[in-house]
Amino acid sequence: MSLPPLAARLSGLQSSAIRDLLKLTSRGDIISLAGGLPDEQLMPQEKIAAAADAALARRSRLQYTESAGWIPLREVLAARESARLGRTVPLGEVFVTHGSQQALSLLAEVLLDPGALVLVEDPAYVGALQVYRAAGARIVAVPLDADGMRVDVVEQLLARGERPAVVHTVSNFHNPRGVTMSPERRRRLAELAVAHGFWVVEDDPYGELWFERPSPDPVATYAPNVIRLSSASKTLAPTLRVGWMVAPESVCRAVELLKQGADLCGSALTQQIAADLLADTDWFTAHVDSVRAVYGERAKALVAAVRGRFGDRVVSTDAAGGMFVWVDFTDGTDTSALLPRAIEQGVAYVPGAAFAVGAGHENSLRLSFVTSDTTTLTEAIERLGRAADGRPQSRS
Amino acid sequence: MSLPPLAARLSGLQSSAIRDLLKLTSRGDIISLAGGLPDEQLMPQEKIAAAADAALARRSRLQYTESAGWIPLREVLAARESARLGRTVPLGEVFVTHGSQQALSLLAEVLLDPGALVLVEDPAYVGALQVYRAAGARIVAVPLDADGMRVDVVEQLLARGERPAVVHTVSNFHNPRGVTMSPERRRRLAELAVAHGFWVVEDDPYGELWFERPSPDPVATYAPNVIRLSSASKTLAPTLRVGWMVAPESVCRAVELLKQGADLCGSALTQQIAADLLADTDWFTAHVDSVRAVYGERAKALVAAVRGRFGDRVVSTDAAGGMFVWVDFTDGTDTSALLPRAIEQGVAYVPGAAFAVGAGHENSLRLSFVTSDTTTLTEAIERLGRAADGRPQSRS
Repeated sequence: MSLPPLAARLSGLQSSAIRDLLKLTSRGDIISLAGGLPDEQLMPQEKIAAAADAALARRSRLQYTESAGWIPLREVLAARESARLGRTVPLGEVFVTHGSQQALSLLAEVLLDPGALVLVEDPAYVGALQVYRAAGARIVAVPLDADGMRVDVVEQLLARGERPAVVHTVSNFHNPRGVTMSPERRRRLAELAVAHGFWVVEDDPYGELWFERPSPDPVATYAPNVIRLSSASKTLAPTLRVGWMVAPESVCRAVELLKQGADLCGSALTQQIAADLLADTDWFTAHVDSVRAVYGERAKALVAAVRGRFGDRVVSTDAAGGMFVWVDFTDGTDTSALLPRAIEQGVAYVPGAAFAVGAGHENSLRLSFVTSDTTTLTEAIERLGRAADGRPQSRS
Repeated sequence: MSLPPLAARLSGLQSSAIRDLLKLTSRGDIISLAGGLPDEQLMPQEKIAAAADAALARRSRLQYTESAGWIPLREVLAARESARLGRTVPLGEVFVTHGSQQALSLLAEVLLDPGALVLVEDPAYVGALQVYRAAGARIVAVPLDADGMRVDVVEQLLARGERPAVVHTVSNFHNPRGVTMSPERRRRLAELAVAHGFWVVEDDPYGELWFERPSPDPVATYAPNVIRLSSASKTLAPTLRVGWMVAPESVCRAVELLKQGADLCGSALTQQIAADLLADTDWFTAHVDSVRAVYGERAKALVAAVRGRFGDRVVSTDAAGGMFVWVDFTDGTDTSALLPRAIEQGVAYVPGAAFAVGAGHENSLRLSFVTSDTTTLTEAIERLGRAADGRPQSRS
């Protein structure tokens, strides 16, 4: 017996290449630098357990909560974001979502009519691409360099008459590209947003994970039409499913209506855990410092191993923060073709092509440094080296 | 400085009337029978706290989990649903969502092309209406009577050439209408779904909350193109945000792709709590029995008070399960006009018009019996009586 059809537009939807790849590389003998997950060994297990006990001592935490988020959590976030943005952020401009991915997906519905133009960085955060594609947006890629999004290219597009509804940027320690947008470009992007009347979605899950120096003032510091997204997934734990958005009240109210239809509300339990931990400022600062120290050491080891093993066959980012290093092969190595041999040698990564908005990035790859210790990272790069040495890689 | 515009289609979105009303009736001196929340006093607080401790003893519970749901939870649900449906439900047909509301909203995207026809019960579950409207569906109302959805009206619509993509039903203890679809109608609806190639969404959050006798076999027993939704919110606690769907694998895989874009995954913490409690079969059965007993007693008291106070001015449902009683005034009382006077007297309810698919139900109201004890319920109806006696109510 045949089933009724599914919606026609589903035919365009595909599983993320990264996600499918991850399924292949969970074999125990493979060192996977392909993942996008933070290190669970560094998550504050005991502190979360204690906060869960405190939350569950109150029956009201068992109930539904506000669609915009449990108010005490929004208060803590408003205080933190006020400090970050250098202005008093009112409660009505703070909205809690189920991870920052949900903020992205609800915002796409709130900000975009079908066919609207969205500018995204290339290579792109795949989760954002997926959302904008599903929203039926027209997507135009803007390249990145060592100073982040090429805002001069945005200017050229505007000069050519393009009228974006949204410009999306992962401003700090870009996933996958590893770079951070310079302060000058932040200011310029905000000016353009005001002058041309578009929204900037500043997607910032990694901003607190800086290694040498704090990340620059957010783009949102410079204009009211910048919507800032962040998350507790990378500093506390993904299981909390706590992300948030700082946006003008009109945007928050529209997102609230959509959130009611999408899933009613978040969990009062996990939102209280997040609130308790974020409110404990001294503890939180020390905790993030310790995560930073470990990730920073791993990043340094990985970059050193890459440069030591490959020399001028590659250009690697410096990994000044976040979770990822981006490596460009300068000798034409095709990283998709290399992957099966790498897996044979016992190491996995994500080929650059998986992050391409259209085509491109065939000679690049993304490495995560956060879930392996320095010895393992060094061994992983040795394996990668063996895979790359095996036979001629170039297809060009 | 003006902000960029929001998406044009948002102009049609409105906050739920019930939700706005609830904000008005949280005054301490008002007995609210307007709510839709289960009684938090009956939620298994200690058991949830113990399960949270057990979950948080493992670091992997802090991490992201599978988009389709934490596998041990899906296994428990598959076992429970196999017993309920009288067939072996494979894991690939079970998908965990963030409450059953998320299942509804993702399904609307999976099953409906814009303009597709959806048949809904009238009065309707407002959360479903909201979702189908947001999906751009054409919505046609099917009335309910004491035996649930008027499947004969569905047949008439089909005979007239209507081709629904989805028929949505709250098959057990309907919200707001209180009725349950008869076994004969379930079988007939399933036959029609197969013959005419439409999906049935069987939305069943209340099925376990029966008072006198278990609810009938699900519609999903009779055909493979019935998608069954349920939830732990009414039997355990809303804070878990655990709902689920039993659907053909092709539907589950499509929902999985959308879930990745919507919010990546649920919480491993709350999903393990739900899994532990649902797997403890003896405890769970005794727990739901005790909830049933309390709700049943309250339902009986409320219905008796309504009939005692209003006599043949009203027809009330019997409240054989679930959370709600539906009262029709036979004397033309306009329940929207009555509401301000009821609030003056210290009682709140939801006017029937709030659940209308188009217009109608002006002489009806919905009462929740689950969050007040029997004495309070009786007092509430006395207050409602005073409000209704105050002056002539009829506008007709």
